[in-house]
Amino acid sequence: MRFQSLFALAILAGIAAPSGASAESAARDLKVEEANRKLVVEFYDKFFNKHDLTAASVVAEDYRQHNPQVPDGKQPLISFFTGFFKDNAQSKAEIVRSAADGDLVWLHVHATNGADDRGQAIVDIFRVKDGKIVEHWDVIQAVPKEAANKNTMF
Amino acid sequence: MRFQSLFALAILAGIAAPSGASAESAARDLKVEEANRKLVVEFYDKFFNKHDLTAASVVAEDYRQHNPQVPDGKQPLISFFTGFFKDNAQSKAEIVRSAADGDLVWLHVHATNGADDRGQAIVDIFRVKDGKIVEHWDVIQAVPKEAANKNTMF
Repeated sequence: MRFQSLFALAILAGIAAPSGASAESAARDLKVEEANRKLVVEFYDKFFNKHDLTAASVVAEDYRQHNPQVPDGKQPLISFFTGFFKDNAQSKAEIVRSAADGDLVWLHVHATNGADDRGQAIVDIFRVKDGKIVEHWDVIQAVPKEAANKNTMF
Repeated sequence: MRFQSLFALAILAGIAAPSGASAESAARDLKVEEANRKLVVEFYDKFFNKHDLTAASVVAEDYRQHNPQVPDGKQPLISFFTGFFKDNAQSKAEIVRSAADGDLVWLHVHATNGADDRGQAIVDIFRVKDGKIVEHWDVIQAVPKEAANKNTMF
């Protein structure tokens, strides 16, 4: 069997497998993962709970943004939340649980804006490279008033 | 210092620290984490892409559900999606990336219902215990038509 055929088979095998199963099963370094978690959790708490915009010093200048409301880059992030924190002085974001896997850190968050706010369930995903946060994805859902179970969204 | 005081201090310290930072920094076993990822990804793909309800054999009878639309338990999960798959025969859920950390597996998913559907961004979190999926959280957001960046939500 020639090299090209083997290569084609490998690609086909990769496409056929459920995505997400293979990509992150490569060698993992728990020391790096825990350092990434620490970096992201400290950034998140300072930025979103203390509203300390200087926490963005660990965000890369060319930060790649997947939240559809915010443009790419560190400065647009700071600009967006300068306005947001001014308008929502009581906003906070409690990290309920987290995961660190490869270069990604995942946070499950309960964001609220004042004591009477049911708030939003959020998962933020950050990619860390060379000690900087370089990319971000999130998914955001309002916490509903009623539910089919008594467990809360958290 | 008495035991009660030490205990109270420990609780205070736990509350004061950013949550999520400490709880999952305990000893981690990558073999277990990768086995959990495999179990969850295979379940997810069979259930949500092949609409094979028998995949729920790995779901615990007393499955604890945090999705506010679905009651606790394995049977309510099957009942809910029996109806959902009947009404949404083209629905699929592509796993874009995943994380395995401790007993949790996190999936970032693009769910769609047909080729013209922009779909939903989802993060699902599953807890695995003794080879069964015992708990589930999710956050779901519709993919918007327009965005402030060109990166997509994935």
